[in-house]
Amino acid sequence: MTVETENTAADLTETMRAMGGRARAASRALGRLDAADRTRGLKAIAAAIRAAAPAILDANLKDMDAARNKGLDAAMLDRLALDEGRVDGIVAGVEAIAALPDPIGREMARWTQPNGLDFARVAVPLGVIGIIYESRPNVTADAGTLCLRSGNAAILRCGSESTRSSHALVDAMRSALTNENLPADAIQLVGTTDRAAVGHMLAGLDGQVDVIVPRGGRSLVERVQKDARVPVIGHLEGLCHMYVDAVADPQKAVDLVVNAKMRRTGVCGSLETLLIDAAVADTLLPVIGTALTDAGCELRGDARARVIVPSMKAATEEDWGTEYLAPVLAVAVVDGLDGALAHIERWSSGHTDSIVTEDAGVAEKFLARVDSAIVLHNASTQFADGGEFGFGAEIGIATGRIHARGPVGAEQLTIYKYVVRGTGQTRP
Amino acid sequence: MTVETENTAADLTETMRAMGGRARAASRALGRLDAADRTRGLKAIAAAIRAAAPAILDANLKDMDAARNKGLDAAMLDRLALDEGRVDGIVAGVEAIAALPDPIGREMARWTQPNGLDFARVAVPLGVIGIIYESRPNVTADAGTLCLRSGNAAILRCGSESTRSSHALVDAMRSALTNENLPADAIQLVGTTDRAAVGHMLAGLDGQVDVIVPRGGRSLVERVQKDARVPVIGHLEGLCHMYVDAVADPQKAVDLVVNAKMRRTGVCGSLETLLIDAAVADTLLPVIGTALTDAGCELRGDARARVIVPSMKAATEEDWGTEYLAPVLAVAVVDGLDGALAHIERWSSGHTDSIVTEDAGVAEKFLARVDSAIVLHNASTQFADGGEFGFGAEIGIATGRIHARGPVGAEQLTIYKYVVRGTGQTRP
Repeated sequence: MTVETENTAADLTETMRAMGGRARAASRALGRLDAADRTRGLKAIAAAIRAAAPAILDANLKDMDAARNKGLDAAMLDRLALDEGRVDGIVAGVEAIAALPDPIGREMARWTQPNGLDFARVAVPLGVIGIIYESRPNVTADAGTLCLRSGNAAILRCGSESTRSSHALVDAMRSALTNENLPADAIQLVGTTDRAAVGHMLAGLDGQVDVIVPRGGRSLVERVQKDARVPVIGHLEGLCHMYVDAVADPQKAVDLVVNAKMRRTGVCGSLETLLIDAAVADTLLPVIGTALTDAGCELRGDARARVIVPSMKAATEEDWGTEYLAPVLAVAVVDGLDGALAHIERWSSGHTDSIVTEDAGVAEKFLARVDSAIVLHNASTQFADGGEFGFGAEIGIATGRIHARGPVGAEQLTIYKYVVRGTGQTRP
Repeated sequence: MTVETENTAADLTETMRAMGGRARAASRALGRLDAADRTRGLKAIAAAIRAAAPAILDANLKDMDAARNKGLDAAMLDRLALDEGRVDGIVAGVEAIAALPDPIGREMARWTQPNGLDFARVAVPLGVIGIIYESRPNVTADAGTLCLRSGNAAILRCGSESTRSSHALVDAMRSALTNENLPADAIQLVGTTDRAAVGHMLAGLDGQVDVIVPRGGRSLVERVQKDARVPVIGHLEGLCHMYVDAVADPQKAVDLVVNAKMRRTGVCGSLETLLIDAAVADTLLPVIGTALTDAGCELRGDARARVIVPSMKAATEEDWGTEYLAPVLAVAVVDGLDGALAHIERWSSGHTDSIVTEDAGVAEKFLARVDSAIVLHNASTQFADGGEFGFGAEIGIATGRIHARGPVGAEQLTIYKYVVRGTGQTRP
């Protein structure tokens, strides 16, 4: 038995290492393509997914059966499920990525030094990107094609429940690349559900993985950030705040809070904590509270909020640090901008925070002082989305502090190199 | 004894955690300053270092005595040594950093979406930067002030041999900040030579360190990359290549190779491997070889090079992967551009590689295909330096693939956030 286990582990090591080598080779081949080749590949992938819809839906039915037998909850089943409309959505997403400007090779800066050396900062791919995600099959297509748009090779590791659906999608994507005489290994899916495969990816596959992008819940992202030996573009939770200032327009405040919380409660940009200035809480909080309650939202308030709206549950310390992703909202009454800033500094996950006010000076202070990837004035936190930014598509919202913050689209999956052109310059 | 050790370890943990907390607080305070405040602080630091020169030189004498007693070699002693001229150089470096454009708050991009939302990508500091370096006292001033220029708080950990010199420098820098009513904890030096302190920094001091920048030899950087639990802006070795093409101008080739190798052999941009096209090796390699030998360089060639210049030592496989940082050069004869590209792909550390040719088409292929942070045409690899790029100062040359590649100056020590200004927009 020991011998068998060792063999299996050795086999997995070898399988993963070989996958890394193929990804590196594909990444180098991608570097020699031009934008038109990548666009051609993306269009072919969109067509291939459309053509393979019956096979993809059939694979998804099997995933769904297995997931039901495993007792997955309704929300997880919903994320896993595909139907013709959702496959159409995946195809439309790939077509949108095909239509994006190609980010590779563009000159980000160019200047000449007094000695005549000509410097250019030129965008290049990151290389090989390992993407570890949960059981949403659309991520397989989104992530694979965003990597291709940005000249990167992708090693995809999906949640085990979506393996059949993801394989069917990747088969279609790879066939399209092969038919177009492009490197199929630009998009690879880890074939095993063995969790040890994730460990291999996090160790970097002998230097063949340049970046890991985790996309999923807190436990996944935390494991990746703890164990990764290669750089991570991390996506932690969205513990988003909205601060309603004394000089807020009351109707805007109601509309913005309700939209930020209730438009979709399961997305990372949904509101989790409402902060309201004590100066207007007496009059405005009851109106906002009623609008939220009418929309089906549970409120959990601090002591001052509950004096004003006694029907609220009492918030505990834990509520300020909880990403509900559900129709629940924590509510605190604060003393003006400074009170709001102190609460946000203590509790924000650095994702998205918003202020509602008609006072431009207060707004600019909030925008300058809140250190989150996205800060908004008089706008819903639900705009935290690459599409809403005009990026076309995103692989997630980065909450780390290096490389990229906020929506990570094709442009954020690139880096640069310096191209220096001389005429024989030596350094004195 | 056990109890004492535990207490000491617990004390160190507490000391380092407190240092992290002070750095975070200083980082937040820095975020509220404007560019003029940072410039004022930098000018005061330059003046304070100049005024403290006697104390700094006295501390350095003690470091040097201790280092000689420990038997450090001449190269290490040279890096450690200060004299009045070197202190003047440090002051001039800080003054140059004070004169740099402040990178914080600049709008990197701004656009409006059809719904009227106004998006701005605005440069912000990284936060708290931990810098781990070896025994060059000037790094203490360079790194601390580059961090201040870019709005970051610095936690500096110098090599143990330079502790007294670095303390004297940091005392002057902190006094200057205090006198200017700026947060002195923007620049902190780890007070202990206990190596466990580095482990604490790599673990992130309870989330108070945002980025680690290692600056030093391969073993230091590799330890940091292996153990860090926070993002690293890595600086690996410079295994730089120069490819002399068939269509190279012979005199430029000689001048560039000799300059790239011999101007300073101990810097990361110095040439380590010469590749020469077989088409011109018979005539050009003897000339280049003589020029190098006359300049005091030892040559180690592959079989084809040694047929042409039999006096060369034979290169082993190890030579292609060695950063000599010494007057030694590996030499290989290759078959044209493809041969050069294959060698570089196999052996380059992704730092700096150069081509010498008068054929613009071949040059552009080389510049496009070589995937290094810096690629040059008809220019010496010794230009791999932030000052030569016009960055004013650098904390090192990044060889990783995320966040920054090449010289890391003040601008590269920043990230951005998105500021979104609306008029009440909700997301449909």
